[in-house]
Amino acid sequence: MKLGIFGTGIVGRLLAEKLVADGNEVMIGTRNIQNTLAKNEPDIIGTPPYIQWQEKNTKVKLGTFADVAKFGEIIFISTFGDVAINAIDMAGTEHLAGKIVIDTTNPLDLSNGIPPGFSGTVGNSLGEQIQRHLPQAKVVKAFNTLSMHIVVNPQREEGDPVLLIAGNDQGAKRSVGEIAKGWGWKDIVDLGGISESFFLESFALLWIRYAFKNNSWTHAFKLLRK
Amino acid sequence: MKLGIFGTGIVGRLLAEKLVADGNEVMIGTRNIQNTLAKNEPDIIGTPPYIQWQEKNTKVKLGTFADVAKFGEIIFISTFGDVAINAIDMAGTEHLAGKIVIDTTNPLDLSNGIPPGFSGTVGNSLGEQIQRHLPQAKVVKAFNTLSMHIVVNPQREEGDPVLLIAGNDQGAKRSVGEIAKGWGWKDIVDLGGISESFFLESFALLWIRYAFKNNSWTHAFKLLRK
Repeated sequence: MKLGIFGTGIVGRLLAEKLVADGNEVMIGTRNIQNTLAKNEPDIIGTPPYIQWQEKNTKVKLGTFADVAKFGEIIFISTFGDVAINAIDMAGTEHLAGKIVIDTTNPLDLSNGIPPGFSGTVGNSLGEQIQRHLPQAKVVKAFNTLSMHIVVNPQREEGDPVLLIAGNDQGAKRSVGEIAKGWGWKDIVDLGGISESFFLESFALLWIRYAFKNNSWTHAFKLLRK
Repeated sequence: MKLGIFGTGIVGRLLAEKLVADGNEVMIGTRNIQNTLAKNEPDIIGTPPYIQWQEKNTKVKLGTFADVAKFGEIIFISTFGDVAINAIDMAGTEHLAGKIVIDTTNPLDLSNGIPPGFSGTVGNSLGEQIQRHLPQAKVVKAFNTLSMHIVVNPQREEGDPVLLIAGNDQGAKRSVGEIAKGWGWKDIVDLGGISESFFLESFALLWIRYAFKNNSWTHAFKLLRK
């Protein structure tokens, strides 16, 4: 399958590695290819330069957001939350019409540094913003509530964590569920329509703030049903 | 110990039953004692009239919010979220100075009926509002993220759920942790200061919305650490 990813950061790279290992063709999209390839310093959170990663991941193509939007049958939005809509505009919304768009972003407030705060508001979560911006796409909020390291390798010693997803299109949610099952997720819970994204985004911040407070990057939540 | 509870609804009653069973003296507070005793119909969510409950729970005293605030060494705020501050004002903030105030409330938006929406905002969670309103009290956000039935009986067949708490006073959080341990909680996680209340309140709505979507009232979350 041809899969596209917006965002060259650690989230996009981990996704790309996993999707290539799964046998897919993968293209990562960036704002400016030359700038991305020219970087030779780690980024703000210590992620090594993209070019170093690409040398080890030669199967992954690099393109503009528009290249990726045209290429992918399914598109992952894995930029920082505050530039997601802009990335989609650069891609051309027409190239995303009818496609499954998986939104992994979170509304982080970095104005007070680390740990991040939360800039989401009810009715205007990033998932809802993206769906409204792409009325012809099938947006699924998923893979945002815990570290992407865990997303692509969900087996925990202490049990099976829950993967929470939301979106308006049942078929698109089933497709996302299939991808997740392929990665080892056993408990996938559909919270409902895309407006549930707010609760997935605030839940992500709970994960993140626990992470910074406890210097823990391996935790996850299991849903106990009884 | 002398414990006070604001709120005569199902949450306050379940708390009172458990606290009495633990051997405490308990007083429940209400806006208007006569009105509370005069009700002879179930409330909006089907809770039977208070008087019926009191006949089976004769050890629990009923008082005004002010009576309860004076009586209790520790006070639980278990009203609806939107009237919590008003209840505190009716109680007299001076009677709560220096005391541990356990805030179990959630900012429910019932304007669109069921399931409830969320009316919380970052920096202005109910926990923060109550702490700001009671600068001399030690406010702990706790017991709000899942049904009070589970709070007072946390043993799950599938594992030990996590109890998330937050507050500015370490000693007060230890006291709340001791109460919780007495009820069977084994994994109590302090998320940090009272500003973390926002994430506990939005997490509560995630629990509630899952509950209504799945008609599930027994679920809880376990924290997997590795």
